[in-house]
Amino acid sequence: MSDNVYKSIELTGSSEVSQEDAVRKAIAAAAKTVKHMRWFKVTGTRGHIENNEIAHWQVTVKIGFTLDN
Amino acid sequence: MSDNVYKSIELTGSSEVSQEDAVRKAIAAAAKTVKHMRWFKVTGTRGHIENNEIAHWQVTVKIGFTLDN
Amino acid sequence: MSDNVYKSIELTGSSEVSQEDAVRKAIAAAAKTVKHMRWFKVTGTRGHIENNEIAHWQVTVKIGFTLDN
Amino acid sequence: MSDNVYKSIELTGSSEVSQEDAVRKAIAAAAKTVKHMRWFKVTGTRGHIENNEIAHWQVTVKIGFTLDN
Amino acid sequence: MSDNVYKSIELTGSSEVSQEDAVRKAIAAAAKTVKHMRWFKVTGTRGHIENNEIAHWQVTVKIGFTLDN
Amino acid sequence: MSDNVYKSIELTGSSEVSQEDAVRKAIAAAAKTVKHMRWFKVTGTRGHIENNEIAHWQVTVKIGFTLDN
Amino acid sequence: MSDNVYKSIELTGSSEVSQEDAVRKAIAAAAKTVKHMRWFKVTGTRGHIENNEIAHWQVTVKIGFTLDN
Amino acid sequence: MSDNVYKSIELTGSSEVSQEDAVRKAIAAAAKTVKHMRWFKVTGTRGHIENNEIAHWQVTVKIGFTLDN
Amino acid sequence: MSDNVYKSIELTGSSEVSQEDAVRKAIAAAAKTVKHMRWFKVTGTRGHIENNEIAHWQVTVKIGFTLDN
Amino acid sequence: MSDNVYKSIELTGSSEVSQEDAVRKAIAAAAKTVKHMRWFKVTGTRGHIENNEIAHWQVTVKIGFTLDN
Amino acid sequence: MSDNVYKSIELTGSSEVSQEDAVRKAIAAAAKTVKHMRWFKVTGTRGHIENNEIAHWQVTVKIGFTLDN
Amino acid sequence: MSDNVYKSIELTGSSEVSQEDAVRKAIAAAAKTVKHMRWFKVTGTRGHIENNEIAHWQVTVKIGFTLDN
Repeated sequence: MSDNVYKSIELTGSSEVSQEDAVRKAIAAAAKTVKHMRWFKVTGTRGHIENNEIAHWQVTVKIGFTLDN
Repeated sequence: MSDNVYKSIELTGSSEVSQEDAVRKAIAAAAKTVKHMRWFKVTGTRGHIENNEIAHWQVTVKIGFTLDN
Repeated sequence: MSDNVYKSIELTGSSEVSQEDAVRKAIAAAAKTVKHMRWFKVTGTRGHIENNEIAHWQVTVKIGFTLDN
Repeated sequence: MSDNVYKSIELTGSSEVSQEDAVRKAIAAAAKTVKHMRWFKVTGTRGHIENNEIAHWQVTVKIGFTLDN
Repeated sequence: MSDNVYKSIELTGSSEVSQEDAVRKAIAAAAKTVKHMRWFKVTGTRGHIENNEIAHWQVTVKIGFTLDN
Repeated sequence: MSDNVYKSIELTGSSEVSQEDAVRKAIAAAAKTVKHMRWFKVTGTRGHIENNEIAHWQVTVKIGFTLDN
Repeated sequence: MSDNVYKSIELTGSSEVSQEDAVRKAIAAAAKTVKHMRWFKVTGTRGHIENNEIAHWQVTVKIGFTLDN
Repeated sequence: MSDNVYKSIELTGSSEVSQEDAVRKAIAAAAKTVKHMRWFKVTGTRGHIENNEIAHWQVTVKIGFTLDN
Repeated sequence: MSDNVYKSIELTGSSEVSQEDAVRKAIAAAAKTVKHMRWFKVTGTRGHIENNEIAHWQVTVKIGFTLDN
Repeated sequence: MSDNVYKSIELTGSSEVSQEDAVRKAIAAAAKTVKHMRWFKVTGTRGHIENNEIAHWQVTVKIGFTLDN
Repeated sequence: MSDNVYKSIELTGSSEVSQEDAVRKAIAAAAKTVKHMRWFKVTGTRGHIENNEIAHWQVTVKIGFTLDN
Repeated sequence: MSDNVYKSIELTGSSEVSQEDAVRKAIAAAAKTVKHMRWFKVTGTRGHIENNEIAHWQVTVKIGFTLDN
């Protein structure tokens, strides 16, 4: 464990449903190019409003993954 | 688009249910006096505890709206 | 009311379900040793990823309670 | 209580006497146009110097008030 | 001078030209409803990109003005 | 001196009179259970408003004390 | 729109002329490897001094772009 | 006015009495070597505790003064 | 793992030797009363100077430990 | 290079024209008493408003210079 | 020099020995895929505790490198 | 003790060896012009990379010293 090096990247996921779902979408998109994801950290929560309603949530996360040795 | 000027105001919504619902209540209250709301940004999440349970969530948001030209 | 002194402690709750549930678990654990809890404040939201899915949410909260006079 | 929505505004009060008095002046000025004020939070403390003495204190506060339902 | 109370509001101005011009547009928009503006403070600088070029700058400012006594 | 280990705890004191008095009340309450207090650091100043007046100040402090060796 | 996932990267552009030009150079460099850039956010402004003059500005920006679906 | 250049320095004043008095002592000490002081800004408030009482307040201020042209 | 609740406490360790040694001393002191420590996070590094030399380092850490279920 | 020690000072320059010009004025003023300036870092941007127009920009910079060995 | 554009990435290195060694491991891992590294900046220091001892240090760094022109 | 006024200055020391050594070099340089140094506080840690190795560490410290009465 102590030899691991993590790289972290920052993504913003969107969802019409909830904050949790926006994070899930960001992780699903990252999974297309990144392997060995281990953790995430929420760094910001925003959203768009249309006709006085929340159109979608936008949650920004840092995602950490181990680099191949 | 590039001529827009946004004003932002800060409100705190409360909900017994969830963070998302507290934001929705803040936006609904703002809609009574503000038009053309476009975005929000969460700036803080707190809550009250009664009898060892969450009594309600309090989520503070900045809400941005375009000024009439 | 104005004579109250609050102490605040920091806990991190975990949940496979949602951010709200992670906060609930932190408060439930605090209730075993602390009385008179009044408020909480979210100070960080993280989580673990396994097999490209969110394994669990970790939400850190400060919890404030009144000291017995 | 859980249905309340708070709006917060930011003011800076001045006083030749003390920090407490500067906050009082900000709240007194807000009272001319805002009802149902509930809390304040100090966000900055500055002041002016004249002839090597403090000419006046300037304390900035966010003031929260409940919106009429 | 020491009896002044300032209120501050937050606006975001846009400009295709420069940061300075975006601030000017925010102040011009505020001038339609606010009197006695005295200072501003830049709290964020963002912008939009279209076709690999800066489409416009968005500068957020807090604007302080004295309240009528 | 160089062998000391400090622990710090966070309390919020309240006072109808002044910020200084609110800090004093927090320290007095801590003294009931903690020994060897050495320093404090103000981390936040808030208050409640009733009838357009400051009902009481709430000052949050971190208090550091040496652990018995 | 609500299905977009943004990735953000951080670059620092340099210019002898102005802050705006330094941001433009960062975006032009990013355009060589990244598509679908949508927004930027200034996160720091520094510069070098030679012979008591500004030799060049260094502006750091986060740049957001949509990931291909 | 627009040609002024300010330099700011940071000092910490101590007082057994109050926060205001600690700032006054910092400004009085600065006055021995600095001319044309114009403003101050509080950047931190700490203190020492002896025998469960506040022994003295320590308030850190940035002090701005105009440079001679 | 996902059922864990962590509590975090803040300590400051001192060492004449190095930053690492100061953290070690804080953890050793915490071990006298706390079980199941899992992680630490450095939140500040200070020190004392005597006769123009570093007399000792003071490193503040948050230490997280799992609560017994 | 690795033996250098930098000292940094903080100045605020003013300009009726632009942010860049305000920084230039701060550096020119510093050059009267400081040698070997190497870098600057913008730490704040404010300004004054008169008659609904920007009267001047005030940009605060930290300036680093090498100490003579 | 003034035409350089830097990109920065964030990595976390681990070491059983020291903070310095953890940074070295992060840089060594980055060197496998990145050329022209010029600087780093520490953005966080954490670690794991096992049996009341520091099992390893985890230091997060931003690493800046010049993009090929 | 309670009558002391501290001034703080900011320096950055460099070392090829370690963070601790970089702080020592900053304090040694300050000792040439400043008397009565009492404390330091680390405010940033950076470094230069050459040929994929750490060329030197750069640690920025605030140093506090008492003013002569």
